[in-house]
Amino acid sequence: MGPHPAVAAIRLAVRRVLHDLLTEHRTAAALPHAPSHEPPPPPLVLVACSGGADSMALASALAFESPKLGIRAGGVTVDHGLQPGSDVRAAEVVQRLRELGLDPVDSVAVTVGRAGGPEAAARDARYAALDTAAERHGAAAVLLGHTRDDQAETVLLGLARGSGIRSLSGMAAVSGAGGRYRRPFLELDRQTARKACMVQSLPVWDDPHNADPAYTRSRLRHEGLPALEKALGKGVVEALARTAQLSRDDADALDSWATQAEATVRDAAGQLECAKLYALPPAVRRRVLRRAAIAAGAPAGSLFARHLEEVDRLITGWRGQGAINLPGKVMARRQGGRLVIRQG
Amino acid sequence: MGPHPAVAAIRLAVRRVLHDLLTEHRTAAALPHAPSHEPPPPPLVLVACSGGADSMALASALAFESPKLGIRAGGVTVDHGLQPGSDVRAAEVVQRLRELGLDPVDSVAVTVGRAGGPEAAARDARYAALDTAAERHGAAAVLLGHTRDDQAETVLLGLARGSGIRSLSGMAAVSGAGGRYRRPFLELDRQTARKACMVQSLPVWDDPHNADPAYTRSRLRHEGLPALEKALGKGVVEALARTAQLSRDDADALDSWATQAEATVRDAAGQLECAKLYALPPAVRRRVLRRAAIAAGAPAGSLFARHLEEVDRLITGWRGQGAINLPGKVMARRQGGRLVIRQG
Repeated sequence: MGPHPAVAAIRLAVRRVLHDLLTEHRTAAALPHAPSHEPPPPPLVLVACSGGADSMALASALAFESPKLGIRAGGVTVDHGLQPGSDVRAAEVVQRLRELGLDPVDSVAVTVGRAGGPEAAARDARYAALDTAAERHGAAAVLLGHTRDDQAETVLLGLARGSGIRSLSGMAAVSGAGGRYRRPFLELDRQTARKACMVQSLPVWDDPHNADPAYTRSRLRHEGLPALEKALGKGVVEALARTAQLSRDDADALDSWATQAEATVRDAAGQLECAKLYALPPAVRRRVLRRAAIAAGAPAGSLFARHLEEVDRLITGWRGQGAINLPGKVMARRQGGRLVIRQG
Repeated sequence: MGPHPAVAAIRLAVRRVLHDLLTEHRTAAALPHAPSHEPPPPPLVLVACSGGADSMALASALAFESPKLGIRAGGVTVDHGLQPGSDVRAAEVVQRLRELGLDPVDSVAVTVGRAGGPEAAARDARYAALDTAAERHGAAAVLLGHTRDDQAETVLLGLARGSGIRSLSGMAAVSGAGGRYRRPFLELDRQTARKACMVQSLPVWDDPHNADPAYTRSRLRHEGLPALEKALGKGVVEALARTAQLSRDDADALDSWATQAEATVRDAAGQLECAKLYALPPAVRRRVLRRAAIAAGAPAGSLFARHLEEVDRLITGWRGQGAINLPGKVMARRQGGRLVIRQG
């Protein structure tokens, strides 16, 4: 008799990612600059584990699959220090990861700042700690337990920004420096991860933040998404996750087009020519303008669709209007058939 | 003292569209094939009016703005025959439109079929009747009262399909044969239209279908969107409407890229070359494959993302797999470095 279907599902998801990692590892080892006489050391893969169901399921699958592929498996838990007793809980998670056979296992205490709001600040501190842990151990990758449900929530959060398809593209299966972060569960639903913990008798910890209506994501999870499912049907989470993937590919293609286009719309002096900008499709022109504004010093995070629309009207609706103010003290003005975007 | 802000807003929205129509009308009249000795007759613009707040507000603004621009204004109401007494209501709407000074005003009774479900069938019957009315009167345009709220609902309905950014692009401001349909209120919220009716003492009719939870759009309007606003904040409707516009531009640009790319990936015999398909960005390749499948006879409405993913794996994950079955008895197979997509 094989494992429970939920356990089989989490293992398959992890196995696929480990296979990809091994292939990349061997390719890198076979490169000319690598020493050719000795086999490469087995790679180390870390799991980032909060002790919640998703990441405990991930840790269990990593512990099961890695020895069969000659991969070393370790774990990291981050103590955000946001609740009393978080250090005790972190120690418990370390204990559970060790019991699964992971080695090394680290607990890293971080100080969460305030920049960008509580959720963003906690995320920034967490990834910084994971980066450090990965570098300290020379890990080939860090696995993250985000599920399809997390992805659906991320798409809706992006939708609420209304800033275009890049913000609809959710989390990538591979991200971070050198593709360090991998998300094996991005096509797996949260219920499967919970079930896999249950049938493996893995104790899991429910982060009270996840149910706290002070957090946007929590409201979305417990009220917004269920109401949307009630109105639109059960396939909403899957549809949102698929939207993420399609949007990501679309955004990548349009970015590459904009990169190529940018080179063709500049004159010999490197100035943007309005007539050539005008001839581009609006979606490509907007991206070229965005790139130019950022290159001139506008902070990407403060540059909104409405800013770019105003700059775009210097091209498509020219009636002698004055300079447009952009974030970061960047100004855009039309001058003798050229679009000048510069700071100050 | 000027008009109430809500009335000013609906009039401005209509005035902008009428200006566009006049410009197009004069440009067309100035073309070489047009008789040059007599001024073109004033164009006729019809409003499609259900008697609800959105389209009554639209009718009132059209009646106010059109004489100032030398435009003739008329109206059409469609009796879907779905409720007892719908004919009496249609006659009332005709009466109200005449009282606003519109002429001609038609009431058109239609028979709603079943194809595609009740909402789609009613929509198909309605647009067919509007097309006929526009042609009978030689109308330059038909104005539709869809608001930003309708647009937000349409984006969410598209999101639930999970079929990519084209389905997120909602309704166009200009659509139909020759750009016949115009939606002046697409950036105006429903509340403004209601308010404009109230302060002008225009009686409005609330379609009971709009509150019937048997309809997906109604559930979305009364439960899904409010819950989403509660979780994500009040800007959701605006963000969804902006997403529609950005997605539409992006989808248009990628479609034009795919059209160009399709010509370059065929060999002298017109066959698709796998190596050239492989070199395209995934977003462009998927669109080329979609176009090829539709050209081979696959019905566009039955061709889903998962079908195209399978065909795509013949290019990106080739391991000798067999032919892929697509809707409309279309088969896709890889043969000697070529992708063959044909019926039967």
